[in-house]
Amino acid sequence: MAEALNIPTHLTVENADFSRAMAWLDGAVVPLEEARIPVRDLGLMYADMTYDVVHTWKGGFFRLEDHLDRFLASCEGLRLDPGTDRDGLRRRLAALVRASGLPDTLVYFACTRGTAVPGTRDPARHRAHRFFATVTPLVLRGQPEEMRRGLHAMIVRGIPRIAAASVNPHWKNTHWGDFHRATFVARDSGEDVALLLATDGAVAEAPGFNIVAYLDGGLVAPDANVLPGVSCRTMFEIAGDLGIPARYGRLMPEELARAEEAFLTATSCGLFPVTRLDGRPVGKGVPGPVTTRLLNAYYERKNAGWRITPVETIR
Amino acid sequence: MAEALNIPTHLTVENADFSRAMAWLDGAVVPLEEARIPVRDLGLMYADMTYDVVHTWKGGFFRLEDHLDRFLASCEGLRLDPGTDRDGLRRRLAALVRASGLPDTLVYFACTRGTAVPGTRDPARHRAHRFFATVTPLVLRGQPEEMRRGLHAMIVRGIPRIAAASVNPHWKNTHWGDFHRATFVARDSGEDVALLLATDGAVAEAPGFNIVAYLDGGLVAPDANVLPGVSCRTMFEIAGDLGIPARYGRLMPEELARAEEAFLTATSCGLFPVTRLDGRPVGKGVPGPVTTRLLNAYYERKNAGWRITPVETIR
Repeated sequence: MAEALNIPTHLTVENADFSRAMAWLDGAVVPLEEARIPVRDLGLMYADMTYDVVHTWKGGFFRLEDHLDRFLASCEGLRLDPGTDRDGLRRRLAALVRASGLPDTLVYFACTRGTAVPGTRDPARHRAHRFFATVTPLVLRGQPEEMRRGLHAMIVRGIPRIAAASVNPHWKNTHWGDFHRATFVARDSGEDVALLLATDGAVAEAPGFNIVAYLDGGLVAPDANVLPGVSCRTMFEIAGDLGIPARYGRLMPEELARAEEAFLTATSCGLFPVTRLDGRPVGKGVPGPVTTRLLNAYYERKNAGWRITPVETIR
Repeated sequence: MAEALNIPTHLTVENADFSRAMAWLDGAVVPLEEARIPVRDLGLMYADMTYDVVHTWKGGFFRLEDHLDRFLASCEGLRLDPGTDRDGLRRRLAALVRASGLPDTLVYFACTRGTAVPGTRDPARHRAHRFFATVTPLVLRGQPEEMRRGLHAMIVRGIPRIAAASVNPHWKNTHWGDFHRATFVARDSGEDVALLLATDGAVAEAPGFNIVAYLDGGLVAPDANVLPGVSCRTMFEIAGDLGIPARYGRLMPEELARAEEAFLTATSCGLFPVTRLDGRPVGKGVPGPVTTRLLNAYYERKNAGWRITPVETIR
């Protein structure tokens, strides 16, 4: 008998207390609504910044070191200086979460090239980079009824994902113009989410999501032109433990179209089933048994403290 | 005898009074240093915004309607609402310049998708878009001695300009990650400015600049994968009046390499000569006679009020 979906129900917009949202900015922790940056910040003017998003679960960071690895690699690649080292970042994020008093949160943290220095266009001369972070209540994308229905995805052809040669997707960035154009196309067509292809025609990613297909007895996720997703890696690790083969590789649209199951991965949901693609059902048109097992195992493990760093242990 | 360069010398960083810089934000005019936007603004989080830059010259906007045309087209293409019509924009920008008391300014104006609404990823649900503008003293990029030396440009291969199919360059945007990577490569190589190619190998643009070559007796500027530059159009109009042929078309790197003259165009300088390309002199390695005539004519015309709208006439 197939396993039933067993996921939290309380983390909704309605239950979230946004009055406890806070920000770390210019050395101080302030209420989120007071956190503002100069309009001449180069992160705003030229998308010259990086960011990452980690979540806390019952008072502990999930895979904090993996997110810090990626953030620090992004900063190095983009020559951005967050003004502190890994341990300092840990302490800033922990202080921020503690200030909110919230157990289940999304923690966004970013580094921009700072306020533009007048009279120069040389990026190396903007030396006062700006680190900031925000904590907001974790609102699960995909409540149980949405999870059971699944997302209806559309491959938006004609708007390729920005090429990796132009903007390196391993350095997490805010270049989302292609995602937004594609999202409008998908929504105008009555679909929930856009899937973008790379310029070579292979499946790339969705806005803020990696895509994973289950076909031919195993999971496959694109290995090129995508952000290396922490949630995708989590699902692959769980799959490995469950004896389900999982690999990164080239995924063509026609392979995705014949997948038995498909899902999107992101920090804000773990995974989100995709039950329709381009107007046709994926598999049976409902979240499949592999998808369900992975998501249930994800919550079981987090509830058991797997890869959790309690906020209280970081001082 | 060749014409000598005859351009203003007083608009330097040293002479600029940045204490008079102002911003129009959320309905009020405030000192620039007080102008801040929420860290959850989608323009910052996802580069979900557009902008334009017009300048004033001796108290008048230069080609204001051309910049407004482009800004309004960008807003429409990106489904952004600046909250007022063309006349309202004119009046906001004029009020801002008047508040600064400065005659020669750069006026940056932008529209973002506003502060993120919690719990949704649907861009259509973020309805409170944010318009803001800043006015700063006009600091001419390229003072006389820099103009006489000219810029040393480097074609940075391997970092193609973001493809137009991904992010439409006609909608002026902040997706500059490719520009910044290429700028670091150029600077590391001891050159001043990076030139990017399109994915098809044709010359595209430099960060914030259109490129124009003079070869075979005429001017040519790339017609694809570039922002339609107002300053480039200005130089083409002046060239037409001077009997110099000018056309938009495909410009290959090998054509640019054998150009007799080359220059970059931008609002902050009109044009800037390029005197070296990839370590070799362009023409004689100094600003050529066509470049010099165009730049001199540009200032003569602006000083005579050509395409100028006095700020005082906008109320």
